[in-house]
Amino acid sequence: MKAEILYGFHPVYEALRADRRTFHEIYISKQTHARRVERIRSEAERKNILLKEVSPAKLQAIGGAVSHQGVMARVTAYPLVDTADLLETVLSGTPSPFFLLLDHIVDPHNLGAIIRTAVCAGIDGVVIPKDRSAYPTPAVSRISAGALEYMRVAQVNNMARFVKTLKDQDVWIVGLDQNAGQPIYAADLTGAVGLVIGGEEKGIRSLVKRNCDFLISIPQCGPVGSLNASVAGAIAMYESYRQRSTGKSA
Amino acid sequence: MKAEILYGFHPVYEALRADRRTFHEIYISKQTHARRVERIRSEAERKNILLKEVSPAKLQAIGGAVSHQGVMARVTAYPLVDTADLLETVLSGTPSPFFLLLDHIVDPHNLGAIIRTAVCAGIDGVVIPKDRSAYPTPAVSRISAGALEYMRVAQVNNMARFVKTLKDQDVWIVGLDQNAGQPIYAADLTGAVGLVIGGEEKGIRSLVKRNCDFLISIPQCGPVGSLNASVAGAIAMYESYRQRSTGKSA
Repeated sequence: MKAEILYGFHPVYEALRADRRTFHEIYISKQTHARRVERIRSEAERKNILLKEVSPAKLQAIGGAVSHQGVMARVTAYPLVDTADLLETVLSGTPSPFFLLLDHIVDPHNLGAIIRTAVCAGIDGVVIPKDRSAYPTPAVSRISAGALEYMRVAQVNNMARFVKTLKDQDVWIVGLDQNAGQPIYAADLTGAVGLVIGGEEKGIRSLVKRNCDFLISIPQCGPVGSLNASVAGAIAMYESYRQRSTGKSA
Repeated sequence: MKAEILYGFHPVYEALRADRRTFHEIYISKQTHARRVERIRSEAERKNILLKEVSPAKLQAIGGAVSHQGVMARVTAYPLVDTADLLETVLSGTPSPFFLLLDHIVDPHNLGAIIRTAVCAGIDGVVIPKDRSAYPTPAVSRISAGALEYMRVAQVNNMARFVKTLKDQDVWIVGLDQNAGQPIYAADLTGAVGLVIGGEEKGIRSLVKRNCDFLISIPQCGPVGSLNASVAGAIAMYESYRQRSTGKSA
């Protein structure tokens, strides 16, 4: 299995805790005196993972000129899940399963930010397309502050087809579309929901959009009128969270 | 007055539209064929602003190795507003004035992202401290997708004192604090509100926190439990927007 180099405190520490990747080696800079590194050291000892203290130059040779905070790890590739695992969440009767369907988010920063928020909002899984999409790389794990290590991410060849599969399981497909007339606050976002977030440039593609049960928008004031994709996603995820937790939908 | 170099399509275009800065010169790369540049060209003509077509090398010499998209402009410094202007919004009887008080946000990315969302959410003004805070630079304008050019930003020497001034004008001061027991959904965020968002590392400082009328938190699931500061701010701003627009608070 292809190895990857995770870098930065949170990706390495959260990957250790999440326990979904196999660790080959952990590298700590000799010049790192951050106290939190001790938390990595004790986790590594507990799990019998080789931990090497290396020079900053060696660290850069291993992982490149990335923002590593003196911490890297050689680990197995990111553990994508199968779409069947996500469907099982629905079939097993999980109350109100909530999925994010990212229809061509290409900026790794947006993917990382969305996944970080998704873990906090209790999202059950994230679906990305195989083509023209950011991928859950170590950089995305870093941007997500390690949240990626917990989230279930599945890749699909055909998003429109997967949308239909979800609909067959009575999941409501809701598209976030700036031109939609219905504001998020007037929509019922409780129950089984798949929220579609479109790419940064073109939004949701037409074939996927046609398969949405309804489209919602985030009201925007002022002369600029365009929220960042990851911020728009966060507002929609948390509006759903609010409705579920308070029992008050529109 | 000190000049600044704005760079990127949105900062230059929105600064032209917002009409708060004086433009000395606009520079367009000879190699830029983006259609939207025509919108800058026609605005510049309308306003009699000198527009020069320059080589990419010259552009870099003017503004440095920044992500300029073939567009730069030499303009007057960012137009901060006075706190008196913000107070006037309250005194003049504006219904439900809403201010953001950023208590030591130091990352320019977070400042730019927060201001972009603030314009979309209809915020009436942003207050930043003079020390240890990101400043509205051209980089922040770029990150805000030009939204900075419209927002009213005031700088204060002493945030705690300004908080007291707002309270004297019957503005409710609400602190966003991850350890607060009251979730945002249980708080009334209508009326005149000053929302305090703390810095990335230490949150709201104690003197400011003591002066908050109440503290609220965003509920977070899962093992990681930390939203990015700009995302947390966005969720709180839009929860207030929801309450104001639907008339349904807790």
